Amino acid sequence: MREAPGVSQAIAELKALLGSRVETGEAVRAAHANTLTWIEAAPPDAVVWPLATDEVAAIVEIAGRHRVPLIAFGAGTSLEGQVNAPLGGISVDLSRMTRILAVSARDLDCTVEAGVTRPALNAHVRDLGLFFAVDPGADGATLGGMAATRASGTNAMRYGTMRDTVLSLKAVMANGAVMTTGGRARKSAAGLDLTRLLVGSEGTLGIITELTLKLHPVPERIVAAACPFETVAAACEATMDATASGLQLARVELLDALQVSAVNAHSKLALPERPHLFVEIAGGAAATEEELTQFREIALANGALAFAWAADETERRRLWRARHDAFWSVRTTWPGRSLVVSDVAVPISALATCVAETEADIAASGLVAPIVGHVGDGNFHVIVVFDAGGRDEGGRVRAFLDRLVARALAMGGTSTGEHGVGQGKAGHMAREFGGPALEAMRAIKGALDPLGILNPGKMLP
Amino acid sequence: MREAPGVSQAIAELKALLGSRVETGEAVRAAHANTLTWIEAAPPDAVVWPLATDEVAAIVEIAGRHRVPLIAFGAGTSLEGQVNAPLGGISVDLSRMTRILAVSARDLDCTVEAGVTRPALNAHVRDLGLFFAVDPGADGATLGGMAATRASGTNAMRYGTMRDTVLSLKAVMANGAVMTTGGRARKSAAGLDLTRLLVGSEGTLGIITELTLKLHPVPERIVAAACPFETVAAACEATMDATASGLQLARVELLDALQVSAVNAHSKLALPERPHLFVEIAGGAAATEEELTQFREIALANGALAFAWAADETERRRLWRARHDAFWSVRTTWPGRSLVVSDVAVPISALATCVAETEADIAASGLVAPIVGHVGDGNFHVIVVFDAGGRDEGGRVRAFLDRLVARALAMGGTSTGEHGVGQGKAGHMAREFGGPALEAMRAIKGALDPLGILNPGKMLP
Repeated sequence: MREAPGVSQAIAELKALLGSRVETGEAVRAAHANTLTWIEAAPPDAVVWPLATDEVAAIVEIAGRHRVPLIAFGAGTSLEGQVNAPLGGISVDLSRMTRILAVSARDLDCTVEAGVTRPALNAHVRDLGLFFAVDPGADGATLGGMAATRASGTNAMRYGTMRDTVLSLKAVMANGAVMTTGGRARKSAAGLDLTRLLVGSEGTLGIITELTLKLHPVPERIVAAACPFETVAAACEATMDATASGLQLARVELLDALQVSAVNAHSKLALPERPHLFVEIAGGAAATEEELTQFREIALANGALAFAWAADETERRRLWRARHDAFWSVRTTWPGRSLVVSDVAVPISALATCVAETEADIAASGLVAPIVGHVGDGNFHVIVVFDAGGRDEGGRVRAFLDRLVARALAMGGTSTGEHGVGQGKAGHMAREFGGPALEAMRAIKGALDPLGILNPGKMLP
Repeated sequence: MREAPGVSQAIAELKALLGSRVETGEAVRAAHANTLTWIEAAPPDAVVWPLATDEVAAIVEIAGRHRVPLIAFGAGTSLEGQVNAPLGGISVDLSRMTRILAVSARDLDCTVEAGVTRPALNAHVRDLGLFFAVDPGADGATLGGMAATRASGTNAMRYGTMRDTVLSLKAVMANGAVMTTGGRARKSAAGLDLTRLLVGSEGTLGIITELTLKLHPVPERIVAAACPFETVAAACEATMDATASGLQLARVELLDALQVSAVNAHSKLALPERPHLFVEIAGGAAATEEELTQFREIALANGALAFAWAADETERRRLWRARHDAFWSVRTTWPGRSLVVSDVAVPISALATCVAETEADIAASGLVAPIVGHVGDGNFHVIVVFDAGGRDEGGRVRAFLDRLVARALAMGGTSTGEHGVGQGKAGHMAREFGGPALEAMRAIKGALDPLGILNPGKMLP
């Protein structure tokens, strides 16, 4: 393996600092390498578990002195190799920094350590009638990791992504300094926006140790709806009409026909094997009723083949079951096959075309790849099912994913709506941003991490 | 005056490039120096009016070669000396770059040149049933200037600030490169967030020449309400209760008792001289009715002394007249006096205390200073009325403003919610952010503008 120079000495110093909270066993190291993509797993040389920001600062100081890479690690649920260690180094596992430091129901905010998970925070604030709105698929994800990868998910249409949700943060910078990016005001026009610079930086500019986050009051009423359409285009038209009418839908999810057939088999459902929209409306009793009526009219006017809705929680869960089970249905429908989940986002007016061209590409390539989309954001996922042992299967999948990104970029979109860049999409950065933006990103990286110790080999090619 | 070395040669080259779109006359130069604050006006050496991004790039190239400062200028309505030229140099007036390049009603976005104003954009998209939501007081402000200063205003509670509204932008960087920060996707997890880094950078990192912006559908119905309270604290409690109940108020504005008395005199109103809330609710017919009923109950439960509301546009304007006339009423109530408008923001739970302590400070200092607040954001303005010719008046006002910022920061707030830093608040940056964040901002500035030609003497002390 490619041991970074000085790594043994750094590990010795880390052991003196952290004792048994440094591990170098193979299983632990393997568990901290990325395994959720086609990228080769590259374990770190050691894993450390800091318990506080000042320990992270001490770790950074040691790593800097020995020029050893540091890879910030939350729950390891990122999908583009963000936690892999292609140049070796130390995985800084923040999952034991789990204190919820403050909650203000009056201000609808909280301050947490980076290792707190979304379900843990939600359990903590539920009795106050509050919830944390960003909801990516991975429940185990830590809030620090979600901030570092600019996570979003099904709720983003109404409540925004981590970009909109982090009020300020604390991070240890490459020089060991503990930086605080702001206070608790809901808005500020003071200074460069370091909060947003760190959100989505994937551990390449600093290691996030604390976050001040927005919370939201639990809606008075939630209504769920589901409706099949003849075509993806009709489902997209309905979504655009709803948005243009000022409806504030909380979630709008699309499953393509193949995904519906997989979930029918897995979850013993009998949905028509057509593209489906799954919608959630949240708010006051009258407002949700009004939006439901308007959305129903819009869906039917756009050719919805049926329209089911429910307000009761059990019924809502039943209605959304196909959406919830989407990923696992693919696993069980094609057992023993490997999966790669990729995502892109385009302006919503281009979504139907982008999905249709992608489905045609899937068919022409002889691939199996259901599609699930956050339609309201123009964002969709392709779950590529393939035989990892098959001859040249990896190359065929990668070529398809390259075409997927090229298609999205040609439509004014982005190479990734929510999974981030990591190693998997680094090769697309130049095409997405062009030379001057890439040069600016590299200049910023160079200025804030001149030794290149923070998550090297990620994001910036 | 402090002519930057090389400025004469730079002006000669600019005249060769732009002809009559370079001016050095005293009146033009004076009109491009800041005059809206206590900061001494410092005119640039020349003013140039580019018509396109490539002309801005050529201007930057010339300025860089001669080490001449460049100050991006929109409409000159910024309030903290952002467009002043304390080190001389060239004011780059973007107000003639007024093309609306694209509008997509399907995607609810548009792409405009930096010199387009908010009213011009709104006039352009009105027939499509759309509007641009960020609404600062200054109608003449350009969208480029609003982005550069991270502007917000009364609508921010519901629709966000320029931070949330700019999807991507084009900027000329200090090396003359034309940088594009992204596409038109509603969200992206790709790369460092250069869009947000440029938004609020006050022309210190690049000159913004184009913007892709979110638009919103005009709400089906708007309801306005106004209600007086015994105390600012009661008005703040009502706002917090409304937010905690999940009401999505579009605007919530506070006028303190002194401000109400000024506007009574100016606009011939007979409002009780108590703190007032002015509220706007927008959405569907049933949703607005429901929110109005709920807000009325909350206001009365918190001691509102009366409650007036209106849905008809003329009636709404009448009800909000006091809010609209607030600034001008101060001008006419204290004729011949100078005004300084400052702003801070705090967590909303601290707002009542912050306003009360500020009112006490105003009284103890013998100042006259009405208060207007965007309560929903915890953001408020103090309009300090003083005699510019009075002995040591400037010092007394500045000391008061310093205490205002210190108070907001001590409560976890920010030195400025929406006016920005410029020259006026640069001295507070260290206190607000601390050493490591300031060091990171300086490192970024140094990396992106190594010669320091972009708006020097602003933001970073």
